[in-house]
Amino acid sequence: MGPRARPSAAIVLSGDELLDGRTRDSNGRLLAGVLSGRGVRVASLAIVGDDRARLAATLRCALAGEPDLLLVGGGLGTTHDDLTAECLADVLGVPLREHDGALEMVAERARDVAERRGLDFTDVLERTRRQARLPAGARPLPPAGVAPGIAAVVGATRIFAFPGVPWELRRMWSEVEAELEREGFFPSVVTRLVRLFGAGELQISPVLEDCARDLLWVGINIGAGEVTVILRHDADEAARAQAAAVVAALEAELPVFSSDGRTVDDLLGEALRTRAETVAVAESCTGGLLGARLTARPGSSDYVRGGVIAYANQVKEGLLGVPRELLERHGAVSEEVAAAMAEGTRHVTGATWGIGVTGVAGPSGGSPDKPVGLVYVGCAGPGGVHVVGNRFPGDRDNVRDWSVVRALHLLREQLGV
Amino acid sequence: MGPRARPSAAIVLSGDELLDGRTRDSNGRLLAGVLSGRGVRVASLAIVGDDRARLAATLRCALAGEPDLLLVGGGLGTTHDDLTAECLADVLGVPLREHDGALEMVAERARDVAERRGLDFTDVLERTRRQARLPAGARPLPPAGVAPGIAAVVGATRIFAFPGVPWELRRMWSEVEAELEREGFFPSVVTRLVRLFGAGELQISPVLEDCARDLLWVGINIGAGEVTVILRHDADEAARAQAAAVVAALEAELPVFSSDGRTVDDLLGEALRTRAETVAVAESCTGGLLGARLTARPGSSDYVRGGVIAYANQVKEGLLGVPRELLERHGAVSEEVAAAMAEGTRHVTGATWGIGVTGVAGPSGGSPDKPVGLVYVGCAGPGGVHVVGNRFPGDRDNVRDWSVVRALHLLREQLGV
Repeated sequence: MGPRARPSAAIVLSGDELLDGRTRDSNGRLLAGVLSGRGVRVASLAIVGDDRARLAATLRCALAGEPDLLLVGGGLGTTHDDLTAECLADVLGVPLREHDGALEMVAERARDVAERRGLDFTDVLERTRRQARLPAGARPLPPAGVAPGIAAVVGATRIFAFPGVPWELRRMWSEVEAELEREGFFPSVVTRLVRLFGAGELQISPVLEDCARDLLWVGINIGAGEVTVILRHDADEAARAQAAAVVAALEAELPVFSSDGRTVDDLLGEALRTRAETVAVAESCTGGLLGARLTARPGSSDYVRGGVIAYANQVKEGLLGVPRELLERHGAVSEEVAAAMAEGTRHVTGATWGIGVTGVAGPSGGSPDKPVGLVYVGCAGPGGVHVVGNRFPGDRDNVRDWSVVRALHLLREQLGV
Repeated sequence: MGPRARPSAAIVLSGDELLDGRTRDSNGRLLAGVLSGRGVRVASLAIVGDDRARLAATLRCALAGEPDLLLVGGGLGTTHDDLTAECLADVLGVPLREHDGALEMVAERARDVAERRGLDFTDVLERTRRQARLPAGARPLPPAGVAPGIAAVVGATRIFAFPGVPWELRRMWSEVEAELEREGFFPSVVTRLVRLFGAGELQISPVLEDCARDLLWVGINIGAGEVTVILRHDADEAARAQAAAVVAALEAELPVFSSDGRTVDDLLGEALRTRAETVAVAESCTGGLLGARLTARPGSSDYVRGGVIAYANQVKEGLLGVPRELLERHGAVSEEVAAAMAEGTRHVTGATWGIGVTGVAGPSGGSPDKPVGLVYVGCAGPGGVHVVGNRFPGDRDNVRDWSVVRALHLLREQLGV
């Protein structure tokens, strides 16, 4: 990134469940993603267990870097291992006090919970009341779920603490984000994403190396078959021109499918909606993952019909009309069956496009002839059916993930977007 | 946890993509989970960007805690921002040297890549050769994908560095785990997991508080409708007895569905396989997520038939035989349609059990009558069909996740396991 200073942030998440593999962190990813996208430099993301000393030490360590923003997730619940308020008070050198506004918020939520679960209000309030205790001088953030958040300031650092429940954190953070936005906290930063399918890092790096990029911060992200090049820069003309030149070079030499931020999901959704066309799936080894991905996008009911999870051969035959003879002659994992599945789902759902996926996800079921990772993806449409064969690396999860991405791109190619 | 000392570990992951929201960390979760389960205390998990100074500082900071194990993920690729080897050498105070064994490994992989992508071998080797440079005194770990790992020792800390590609890390870590196992690194620790469905933290805490638990480490994990109580203790009689008493108390008072480690997925898979029965899905708002979850388990083709993603009403009618009149009278999101979907998929796939899911995942599509989060789940089986209505909190993703978990438990209840 160019010479101008960007605000910085540190993120601290607490919770044993994040350290012993029980729960996958999504809060850190969300916060880091939004902040980066808005030009804030995320200096560190630390995860600590529900341990008073370690949480306090980590907060101190994060504050020592004097970030402009310290975001804390987790540790605001009702159990003995919810230590965030206490540790924050400690680190700020102030006492913990019951806050009137916070108590009101907690009481209101306690009333709801008591009603919903048929419990005694006084009991519930007694159990949740500690959530109204804040470091002196801090203010509560209205809860999305049950626990209020905490806002405090120390030196030049603004601190915001949220409960760890992902949807509560998301909702409460977006309020804080709007507040920071109103105050002009976020710099003017431009992010350009160049997305590629069908080229690897080894082909991309040389192209980048040939471009002037001293005004850019350049990152490469490798997904399940997709590569994204991220260009971030200040909002001035010289930097803009440099970024545009990099984008042009990538587009000229490599299979770039998007350079305006849209994902493959966006491209498919928009193309199908514009053309008033629909898509349906026929999934064997992916077992529903492709349908789940297509319908993850709000509003996808406009263009996703649904489809068939044809895990068993009887379902391939019965619901999709794949001829038994085809299954017997070529095997379920074959170009022919992928094509028949794609055509079958198109036919039975009445969709414009049908996508069929059949493969060996592993760990068992592979043979020398049809090894684990072999996946056929077919796409049937008004112009006929196209099938691609793939050999994906990695384990069951990986093979399934790559299959979904390959399927999306096959449809994209057929749609010509 | 009891008085005996447990070995400790620190985890450091590097990669800008983990800090700017592009990639969700799965490596930290995996490593932390395995280590915790084997009785290793995970002291910290730090994520840093591709920044030389910050990575070195974080490694130093992790080593300052004198962990028995330091695991490093990421930064072993071929680009200029792959800095792990360099930073490790720095922190260990040794030079970086090309290692003969590592060079052999890299050359072998370069040959593969060159062949597969039709590139020149010498070119590819030139671009990947830096992966053979290790801190002096370190040894390479054989690569699963392209990059070798690094094993080194400093003081009482054993260091292992892996590439950040998840399946490569998983495979290489399992070799290291086996090596540590052979050396007797892991203590004898017992973990008991008590899984509940239909009770919240507020009901569980009082039960735990009434039990003696000074020899136990107790954790609570809240998932999408499921709660897991984790009891971890030394392998002695006194601790075992205390854990057994806690398990018994929870089972006596609350809806515990598993206390032997098995997940709801395991219970369903085993019950269906034992009975030689099968299941099929009919998914509207979950769009394939339930099928994907059921088929995520290796070997699930023994008992999962597949099913129908009935996102559009035409598919509910056409493929599942849901009467149009039912859809018009009650709406797609209704008890009646959930039941008809469950029966429909059971019928058309020939499965023993059919599960139907229909709901309003949001963000749009809600009404005062049928708000976002309203989800009906039906389960049809030999004894008839049962439907449960739910009102799930949170956003689209959350509603879909909770719906899947509710569906699994409805089938579990019907199977009587």
